[in-house]
Amino acid sequence: MKVDGKHYRTIWVADGGSAVEVIDQTRLPHVFAVRRIETADDAAHAIRTMIVRGAPLIGATAAYGMALAMDRADDDGALSAAYELLVATRPTAINLRWALDRVRAALAPLAPALRAKAAWVLAAEICDEDVAICEGIGRNGLELIRQAHARKGGQGPVNVLTHCNAGWLATVDWGTAIAPIYMAHDAGIPVHVWVDETRPRNQGASLTAWELGRHGVPHHIVADNAGGHLMQHGLVDLCIVGTDRVTAQGDVCNKIGTYLKALAAHDNGVPFYVALPSPTIDWTVADGIREIPIEQRAQHEVTRIAGRLADGSVVEVDIAAPGSPARNDAFDVTPARLVTALVTERGVCAASRDGLDGLFPGSAPRRAG
Amino acid sequence: MKVDGKHYRTIWVADGGSAVEVIDQTRLPHVFAVRRIETADDAAHAIRTMIVRGAPLIGATAAYGMALAMDRADDDGALSAAYELLVATRPTAINLRWALDRVRAALAPLAPALRAKAAWVLAAEICDEDVAICEGIGRNGLELIRQAHARKGGQGPVNVLTHCNAGWLATVDWGTAIAPIYMAHDAGIPVHVWVDETRPRNQGASLTAWELGRHGVPHHIVADNAGGHLMQHGLVDLCIVGTDRVTAQGDVCNKIGTYLKALAAHDNGVPFYVALPSPTIDWTVADGIREIPIEQRAQHEVTRIAGRLADGSVVEVDIAAPGSPARNDAFDVTPARLVTALVTERGVCAASRDGLDGLFPGSAPRRAG
Repeated sequence: MKVDGKHYRTIWVADGGSAVEVIDQTRLPHVFAVRRIETADDAAHAIRTMIVRGAPLIGATAAYGMALAMDRADDDGALSAAYELLVATRPTAINLRWALDRVRAALAPLAPALRAKAAWVLAAEICDEDVAICEGIGRNGLELIRQAHARKGGQGPVNVLTHCNAGWLATVDWGTAIAPIYMAHDAGIPVHVWVDETRPRNQGASLTAWELGRHGVPHHIVADNAGGHLMQHGLVDLCIVGTDRVTAQGDVCNKIGTYLKALAAHDNGVPFYVALPSPTIDWTVADGIREIPIEQRAQHEVTRIAGRLADGSVVEVDIAAPGSPARNDAFDVTPARLVTALVTERGVCAASRDGLDGLFPGSAPRRAG
Repeated sequence: MKVDGKHYRTIWVADGGSAVEVIDQTRLPHVFAVRRIETADDAAHAIRTMIVRGAPLIGATAAYGMALAMDRADDDGALSAAYELLVATRPTAINLRWALDRVRAALAPLAPALRAKAAWVLAAEICDEDVAICEGIGRNGLELIRQAHARKGGQGPVNVLTHCNAGWLATVDWGTAIAPIYMAHDAGIPVHVWVDETRPRNQGASLTAWELGRHGVPHHIVADNAGGHLMQHGLVDLCIVGTDRVTAQGDVCNKIGTYLKALAAHDNGVPFYVALPSPTIDWTVADGIREIPIEQRAQHEVTRIAGRLADGSVVEVDIAAPGSPARNDAFDVTPARLVTALVTERGVCAASRDGLDGLFPGSAPRRAG
């Protein structure tokens, strides 16, 4: 999407393949800066510290991390070491493992000398596929927004609530949950977004609001606490969020707090949609609450925050009572029963085994290996 | 309660009655500072800017505001003007109107010359009553914590989740929701508190965590998004929150986000208790969602935050995407159906008309005037 009139993806090859570059998402919305990734270690660091984040973008970055590793050493040991380094960076998003498995499976049978080039080609392919997938999600989700607009008799904007950032910054381009919103806006359907701030890392207030603002989509930032109240008062027409992993029975793992919004949507009869690229489906697990590992991140993400001073400089400040400890679970799981539908690149389906099987027949065994 | 070994209330008379003093809650947890209130205007300013906050403390401050007004002018016009000034400061907490109605009703029949002294006596009485009420809530809530501990077979701490600040800082002393926790802790029942940060003003991370830390009660600050996940994993034994207004049918208006936690508690079979002093009951309204006015506060409370730099100085920083607007509803309403029980100074009752009538027979007509 565009930043100040120039089109960007979130990750791209630099200097004919000696490095990749990414938008440093830890510095947004205060500073728009590009960061260079030259080694697999750099890629692992970028994922771990959330310079890049969002399940699809994590997968793409990991794929390039493998390519950068192969440039330095292409034997079996190097392949395995790069895989292990990258797969350990973050535990919850399934796209990471999916991308790494795919790259490793493609490279392992090749003669070592052929691996580096193949890895670069495959990483680019994964990126292009992600863009195409997100466009597909956008088109399918657009119909849901169009229907919501029709249900309102074409009056007023469609008010969409979203949590965290599932916009283009979370993917290679377009986004998952936000892709339909961009397409609706571009198609002239009036749309207004309630942007959950998304504590503790504020990806909503800092990334989603920034994206929407750059694209000109009307929005308001709200505290994560506000969504239920807005729904009680008829101010939300639909919710749409992204996901880091969906189980074979349709349970949705996503940014912490998603479950609370799904409960409120259910209690108020508001449709709750989850946008997902098919690589986000983990066909090997069923019960999300019991089976998906939930990352616990550092306490200081809760007790400290970065912001701009009046002079524009960016500082970190402590915001909590001195000495009080914090706990920081990064994700939660929304049971399938609370999800109105899943929006994939192949279409919209029920959040259930049958729903997913209908769109992706035979996927469970194929990906179980 | 104690601050660095010295006992404080949140409001007290200074210099034999020429002013009152309060703890400036806008500066906690960074700075513990006392603020002087010399006029009704000062009192109104303190309530409006949340130097004092919490429904019971707002009521007490308003009562002293009336006394300060009467010191300057005690005719009917002055009485009426002070009432109107103070009642307009904040719309949601019912204790404000309750305290002001009580003071006005007591002063109006008196000869003007007698009003100032009567107002000072009555304000002190309202404060002392609040302390006694909170002690009663504490004793009644203590039994609920004791039962929860017994249900766990006496093993491990009772994990209590609370939202916002309903501790002693929200009242004159003891607190409402936190009073039972202090009493359980002091009685040797192991208790651990999940402190919801409570965006946007962070009363949990800055006030509740500060209070609990000073008193030595084990706790962790969590993002408002986390409670549902903690409940899904059996990490919450009970929730207890305060309230700014409870309707005659048991709907609970409290800090924005309370409703989301009540939904999660209901979904996970976790008891959800609301602690309230009886002046917080609004016998004149039934349906909280339709009838209680919800304050909308300034956008910058969402987009800007105060914190400590490494050198200890306190600064305000902008944390959201530049130019993005915010919406800031301060409260929401939790329907009675989601509330396990109400904990009052008279005992514990169902969140229903019958439950409240049982503890406070005949109250509806008495307070309707």
